[in-house]
Amino acid sequence: MTGTGKVYLIGAGPGAVDLMTLRAVRMLKEADAVVYDRLVSSEILDLAPAAAQMVPVGKAPKCHTVPQDRINEILVELAESGLTVARLKGGDPLIFGRGSEEAAHLEACGIAVEYAPGITAAQGMAAWTGVPLTHRGLATGVRYVTGHRARDARLDLDWKSLASQDTTLVIYMGAANIAEIALRLMGEGMPGALPVLAISNATTPREARLVSRLDRIGLDIAETPMRAPVLFVIGHVVSLYRGMPIPVAEPVAEAAVMAGE
Amino acid sequence: MTGTGKVYLIGAGPGAVDLMTLRAVRMLKEADAVVYDRLVSSEILDLAPAAAQMVPVGKAPKCHTVPQDRINEILVELAESGLTVARLKGGDPLIFGRGSEEAAHLEACGIAVEYAPGITAAQGMAAWTGVPLTHRGLATGVRYVTGHRARDARLDLDWKSLASQDTTLVIYMGAANIAEIALRLMGEGMPGALPVLAISNATTPREARLVSRLDRIGLDIAETPMRAPVLFVIGHVVSLYRGMPIPVAEPVAEAAVMAGE
Ligand SMILES: C[S@@+](CC[C@H](N)C(=O)[O-])C[C@H]1O[C@@H](n2cnc3c(N)ncnc32)[C@H](O)[C@@H]1O
Ligand SMILES: C[S@@+](CC[C@H](N)C(=O)[O-])C[C@H]1O[C@@H](n2cnc3c(N)ncnc32)[C@H](O)[C@@H]1O
Repeated sequence: MTGTGKVYLIGAGPGAVDLMTLRAVRMLKEADAVVYDRLVSSEILDLAPAAAQMVPVGKAPKCHTVPQDRINEILVELAESGLTVARLKGGDPLIFGRGSEEAAHLEACGIAVEYAPGITAAQGMAAWTGVPLTHRGLATGVRYVTGHRARDARLDLDWKSLASQDTTLVIYMGAANIAEIALRLMGEGMPGALPVLAISNATTPREARLVSRLDRIGLDIAETPMRAPVLFVIGHVVSLYRGMPIPVAEPVAEAAVMAGE
Repeated sequence: MTGTGKVYLIGAGPGAVDLMTLRAVRMLKEADAVVYDRLVSSEILDLAPAAAQMVPVGKAPKCHTVPQDRINEILVELAESGLTVARLKGGDPLIFGRGSEEAAHLEACGIAVEYAPGITAAQGMAAWTGVPLTHRGLATGVRYVTGHRARDARLDLDWKSLASQDTTLVIYMGAANIAEIALRLMGEGMPGALPVLAISNATTPREARLVSRLDRIGLDIAETPMRAPVLFVIGHVVSLYRGMPIPVAEPVAEAAVMAGE
């Protein structure tokens, strides 16, 4: 046998195949087994070798199909049987992706880990809508926070610190709590007229967008729910949105062939 | 003639060629003219068509070789002469990249713009060092800020809001001011023992790293200056750094050929 295998922790990006990095594609092509989340599209999974063992461990919202401990075990078992394992995650594995938790477990078991970063959802939103994450005069920085709370827990964010108008605020996993988030930000002095962009399935053919404002986004989402996954962008940069058409993702074969000329 | 051309605003990523997206490579391959910043490596420029006109507009620190207004003009002139123009920037064009300023100017002149997002320096740092941007129990979010100040101006950041220990703080363009930044953060109550990672030329063969703490980073950088570009990561996530070896970037031909199989 070949001894212990290794695990590639790979960011698949927000959805469009052509947003994968060359590194991510190479690692996926090397895999004997692919362990993937629900957010990873079938077009991306199609890049895996035909012989690779495909292991879905997808997390549906409020329904963690495979608990994190079990995912860790699966990765260890596959690698210990000598396989090269591609662990595919949506976006970037080290931004709300638990990549470093999985890496810590694997390394404690003596299994080598390598990363491929991925375009995170906020960057996909920016490139597809034209709304920048920073812009001179509108945002001196950008901040990604999670709007998710553990069951029955309070939404425990540092509201005072978040209420800063010169920073673009991007909320991941916030669809269930956006009304409360908006209220708390206004409670700390953020203006109700501050523009908000909600985007669902950014960079995919199912992309949907909604432009609103801080004092209306809660109602808007309650009245017209958007399909998961949804990202919220709060800040003056959203004023630059001019209804840019949704770009087309190029089929990967074409893009990759051109890269290899 | 072919009429007006278009401009691709392309993120080249932090340095390693294999961190480019398939989309970025495709757009670069289509270009008749390539307008590029100093941070873009020669390996990446080599992906441009041999016949493409190469236009450096690189910004060296404190020496903006080509002023932004002139860059805007160059892009308009090239596109108006019917060319497909690739505007290549380090990292992501919409994170401290002025991509949206250039896009606004181009669109005002009736020139079509498309984006390719890029892996930003913070993500390259994370994938190469293993230090995550978020991690349960250590950081509920991440924030990118600029540590740059206009000549003779004060460093005008919202220090109270920045002094939040449960957010990973990433400082772009901060090498000249890191001592002051650290002092101000401690002034707002951030502990001197908070770990800090400084990384120079992340993901390139010239990568260098320094692990320090908030109360020492200013002196460390004064005594051992690092080569630009330098990124600082401040927060508890840095405690996960275990001196991971520097990964190797794969030559692009190999990666791309595998992608195209
Ligand atoms: C568990 S987090 C994973 C984030 C991922 N690691 C990344 O870097 O994008 C899942 C959340 O990411 C956001 N998200 C991921 N992909 C998205 C997409 N294509 N469109 C909109 N939001 C997305 C949503 O807020 C979703 O609730
Ligand atoms: C004008 S900003 C451009 C940022 C770029 N758009 C991005 O998304 O990474 C330049 C700053 O980015 C950071 N930077 C860019 N590439 C880097 C690298 N390879 N290693 C470390 N820092 C880098 C440095 O802080 C540098 O001062």
